[in-house]
Amino acid sequence: MNIVSLEETPSLKRSIDQGTGTQREAVTGILQQVKERGDEAVQEYTQQFDKVTIADPRVTEEELSEAEAAVGEETRTVIREAIENIRDFHERQRQETWITTKEDGTILGQKITPLDAAGVYVPGGRAAYPSSIIMNVIPAQVAGVERIVMVSPPQENGKLEDIVLFTAKELGVKEIYKIGGAQAVAALTYGTKTIDPVDKITGPGNIFVALAKQLVYGTVDIDMIAGPSEVVVLADESGHGDYIAADLLSQAEHDPMSSAILVTTSRELAEETAVEVKEQLQTLPKKEIAEAAIRDHSTIYVADTLAQAIAAVNELAPEHLELHTAKPWDIVSKIKHAGAIFLGENSSEPIGDYFAGPNHVLPTNGTARFSSPLNVEDFTKKSSIISYSEQALRENGGKIAAFARLENLEAHARAIDIRLEKGAGHGKTTGS
Amino acid sequence: MNIVSLEETPSLKRSIDQGTGTQREAVTGILQQVKERGDEAVQEYTQQFDKVTIADPRVTEEELSEAEAAVGEETRTVIREAIENIRDFHERQRQETWITTKEDGTILGQKITPLDAAGVYVPGGRAAYPSSIIMNVIPAQVAGVERIVMVSPPQENGKLEDIVLFTAKELGVKEIYKIGGAQAVAALTYGTKTIDPVDKITGPGNIFVALAKQLVYGTVDIDMIAGPSEVVVLADESGHGDYIAADLLSQAEHDPMSSAILVTTSRELAEETAVEVKEQLQTLPKKEIAEAAIRDHSTIYVADTLAQAIAAVNELAPEHLELHTAKPWDIVSKIKHAGAIFLGENSSEPIGDYFAGPNHVLPTNGTARFSSPLNVEDFTKKSSIISYSEQALRENGGKIAAFARLENLEAHARAIDIRLEKGAGHGKTTGS
Repeated sequence: MNIVSLEETPSLKRSIDQGTGTQREAVTGILQQVKERGDEAVQEYTQQFDKVTIADPRVTEEELSEAEAAVGEETRTVIREAIENIRDFHERQRQETWITTKEDGTILGQKITPLDAAGVYVPGGRAAYPSSIIMNVIPAQVAGVERIVMVSPPQENGKLEDIVLFTAKELGVKEIYKIGGAQAVAALTYGTKTIDPVDKITGPGNIFVALAKQLVYGTVDIDMIAGPSEVVVLADESGHGDYIAADLLSQAEHDPMSSAILVTTSRELAEETAVEVKEQLQTLPKKEIAEAAIRDHSTIYVADTLAQAIAAVNELAPEHLELHTAKPWDIVSKIKHAGAIFLGENSSEPIGDYFAGPNHVLPTNGTARFSSPLNVEDFTKKSSIISYSEQALRENGGKIAAFARLENLEAHARAIDIRLEKGAGHGKTTGS
Repeated sequence: MNIVSLEETPSLKRSIDQGTGTQREAVTGILQQVKERGDEAVQEYTQQFDKVTIADPRVTEEELSEAEAAVGEETRTVIREAIENIRDFHERQRQETWITTKEDGTILGQKITPLDAAGVYVPGGRAAYPSSIIMNVIPAQVAGVERIVMVSPPQENGKLEDIVLFTAKELGVKEIYKIGGAQAVAALTYGTKTIDPVDKITGPGNIFVALAKQLVYGTVDIDMIAGPSEVVVLADESGHGDYIAADLLSQAEHDPMSSAILVTTSRELAEETAVEVKEQLQTLPKKEIAEAAIRDHSTIYVADTLAQAIAAVNELAPEHLELHTAKPWDIVSKIKHAGAIFLGENSSEPIGDYFAGPNHVLPTNGTARFSSPLNVEDFTKKSSIISYSEQALRENGGKIAAFARLENLEAHARAIDIRLEKGAGHGKTTGS
């Protein structure tokens, strides 16, 4: 692994796959077809892309029970405990509606309302990711979203993976459809005879899913379009090269585009880590992927001072940040941009991916400068509340009308004037 | 104004101007030029579009003082009071960092951090909108954003409007540039010699500004691309046609695309309001605009029951909702989708536009189903905090590794295994 001394500011920005023109056209066509022809079009695309004919895409109670039976006891326990921890953490993110009252009788406030319906996309194919289902469904459930819909492309046998169905069942997700790709995003956005539309679509997917989400954004809300995963480890001489190397590689195995970076004040640790990465890499099942990520997108930076190292971390604004320093809590307040901060050598990033409680859907590619982990608020929206009293109107109406005229909005001003003129004496009475 | 009985569900969706291909190309070119050539390109575009040569775009202390002197006393008072009210409301939106500790020594939490820098776009031209400056700057200030940059296109005399500069001065905005259009968005996104880049760009603008914001989204964050403004009034027989008409027209005067809708259970009120709209329209300075909005995008719906009327309002998911009913508070809990809810006949929408306290930047075009008013959170981001204890790792490590293997991520599992193997006995000690 490449060791360089930290000079010019490093960057994590990699170009996210925006898809080819052909891919965009294909996706635009799919969206259009599903919008116009609904279920029929969805079924055709499922035949074309998933190589299976699905008459009724809705997953049945039987399928859910079969899946549960097929999953081993250890797996059940692990998933149940993970769900418990993650739900517990997200419960603490819940926001309450509030109001504030003024002496003149005016009441102002902010109302929190859950979205009506959320759609969660679950990728199919080789690897099923129950953790992704948990991390996308729980914030919506805690927010109070009444209708949560899951979609996932069927295998050629016309079924979904047992682990996917079991996780959904454990979470209490009841509306699940065996559809995937851009056609699933279209069905969730525009609705079909069998699938009602949703307000927000989250969850990872391939380039076609990502493009579809980009194109429907505005009609529905979406989560971020995630870039390749990344970890930055900040370490002083107290860090352990073998632990750090293992954590760097756990990022690297995700994707050849993944990025694993160590910023350390210790040249010795830098060299120790480089050796460990090389050794541990040899026996990894996903050796080729990890090797590419380490070679092309990963670096060890040696900094002169901890302050310089921290500055570099803030420049990187990483998705995951691990602090392997003697006093990690002394550094937290200095970290300005990071999706998740892991403190101390015990806090290996996979703990956050699966089990600890916080969400693993995190801002990538430097967007931690302005984006947050997926959270309960993402499945709620706010409405301002304004109940203006007659006294407040009498006292402030003139100023409000004057402000409106300042902006040449005469009708705005007159809406106030007419109330000041007619006031309480005005015919019918209302209970405002 | 058109009166129809409420049958099929109404919709507020209007197609938002996405710009022509030519416009998109132009904006893409401008972004590219400014990214490559910086200040020089910005100056050229200012000459081309604003018809003035600006050597140094930075607004000086002198200009700010001159502007303040030029603004009348009444105006100063109104703006100062508005700022006070709006700041007070937004202070209540502030979120705090929190942590939760577990008996095994684990600490989890959510860190709130303000964005480093925010850019506020202020449209130039005929009408200056101090309220827009206030509504965009205050949430960023309350969030704790250290650097707030304002940009606005210069007039042909090379200056900004006095009222714009005065409002900025009152708010304490010190970094202001006399640049506008797509070139200003580009400068804020990529930075130039004289202007450092920002993390988020908010504020209204013409189609070129809107397109530029769409194109830079991802590199920086932006606020929503707002559609034409809209108001929905929900009224029973206690409503006053003249008040309601005045409020409908205050929306209608914004834009020929604006939408003003009354949903009422009273046929009598419907007719009274229609007459009032017609009459009040005659003497409006912006008669033509308002007339077009009323004719093309506005309707009065008569509902059989209040429940039916409320359902229609939730279908519409309006930007502004006024409740002119005998008991507006009885309805609030039934309103699922609205940017701002105005309760009672005194709560005319302009009160919220300028003075009450809540933000006037609201979701339009039905996006209140999933979007919120501009608020303090929009200028902060969250970071998850995970400090896992050695005890927790020993107790849960096995499960975490098992979960990782469930997803075929062996390197993830090994990052846990290596810690379980070496554990506390591991060479150097860290203070995690």
